[in-house]
Amino acid sequence: MSRAVLLLSGGLDSTTLLAYATHQGHDVYAMTFRYGQRHASEIESARRVAAAYHVRDHVIVDIDLRTFGGSALTGEIDVPKDRDIDHTGGIPITYVPARNTIFLSFALAWAEVLEAGDIYIGVNALDYSGYPDCRPEYIAAYEHMANLATRGGVEGTNRIRIQTPLIDLTKAQIIRRGLDLGVDYSITQSCYDPDASGAACGHCDACQLRLRGFAEAGVSDPAPYVPNSTRTR
Amino acid sequence: MSRAVLLLSGGLDSTTLLAYATHQGHDVYAMTFRYGQRHASEIESARRVAAAYHVRDHVIVDIDLRTFGGSALTGEIDVPKDRDIDHTGGIPITYVPARNTIFLSFALAWAEVLEAGDIYIGVNALDYSGYPDCRPEYIAAYEHMANLATRGGVEGTNRIRIQTPLIDLTKAQIIRRGLDLGVDYSITQSCYDPDASGAACGHCDACQLRLRGFAEAGVSDPAPYVPNSTRTR
Repeated sequence: MSRAVLLLSGGLDSTTLLAYATHQGHDVYAMTFRYGQRHASEIESARRVAAAYHVRDHVIVDIDLRTFGGSALTGEIDVPKDRDIDHTGGIPITYVPARNTIFLSFALAWAEVLEAGDIYIGVNALDYSGYPDCRPEYIAAYEHMANLATRGGVEGTNRIRIQTPLIDLTKAQIIRRGLDLGVDYSITQSCYDPDASGAACGHCDACQLRLRGFAEAGVSDPAPYVPNSTRTR
Repeated sequence: MSRAVLLLSGGLDSTTLLAYATHQGHDVYAMTFRYGQRHASEIESARRVAAAYHVRDHVIVDIDLRTFGGSALTGEIDVPKDRDIDHTGGIPITYVPARNTIFLSFALAWAEVLEAGDIYIGVNALDYSGYPDCRPEYIAAYEHMANLATRGGVEGTNRIRIQTPLIDLTKAQIIRRGLDLGVDYSITQSCYDPDASGAACGHCDACQLRLRGFAEAGVSDPAPYVPNSTRTR
């Protein structure tokens, strides 16, 4: 089995990604970041998901992006609620500066040590069209750089491929793909602003995208939401 | 004054780099990493150097590369001493996997928040020919990726330039350049394996390259070495 490093947040996308990579026959090494995010309970979700899929190893990497500020996910800015997610305009304030670049760089270091040729990241160009580091041209440029950065890339013994199987899918398509692969979405968490128990708020951009995805897929979301969430499923 | 983020280890190269960037008229934001390196006293050297140059801000970023192992600088492997530095063969074991990629990615996040267009890194293709992430083609690929990763790069409001003014210089040329700029090399530290006081060992690859550079520049190294270092200056 070939080794793969997989970025796992414990959300809907990365859990589907893990189901996919496992189905592809990879020996998966999962990596999760504790980066000062408001939604730190996603770490617990990542642990549940990693355990459910019996990954070979799961590391939690501590990095402090709050040093730099600049995002509603790590800073003092409030997470926006009940926005029109189809017309948010430009790059959203929940964008974390260079986040995927930092995440991929740690994954690259681990891949180099493990001699893993594949790095899986659950970026999606449709739902996150405002995030520059979720686009195919960014991913292609990262892969090119990665193969100039590493011993295995330069020597040709371990070419790195950045795998983004979800990049062109709608949220509903991701959910259908996951259900086909037997994903239990009740253990996943996507919310930017969950309560202490990990229940989703139902109103942030991530909750809105997720709930619409389940609605379009024709199934109900089995994950917990806060009791007073007016967003019904 | 235009803002620049500068990667500062407190060694000979990055101190010369800081003198250069300051001379270019940049408003410098220095970034140093505590990454589990054996030579953690280089952090103190970086603090001295940042203070000497009155940088606008200096952040120490904690990241733990020991998670991944794989290098004599962070792991259990001994730092090699008294090697023939002209014939070490391939990529040295002091290479830290994806280190410059990780460092540049944090610098990129800060540059994006600061709207700084320049990122300075003291890579050198001659002395570190075995390190894949010190080569011009790697730097060019990183810059290309960075401008696809960031808000300012995509929107054209803040193009990122990765500045590597030392990349083609020999160690002796770097030292001469620094002396012309008035650098006080007594406060810098390059050693991979210094003693508790920060005195250099005189025998690791970094000490050998540094001492040969000073010899070729025709000046003596004012930095402290351990008393029993047989490598005379």
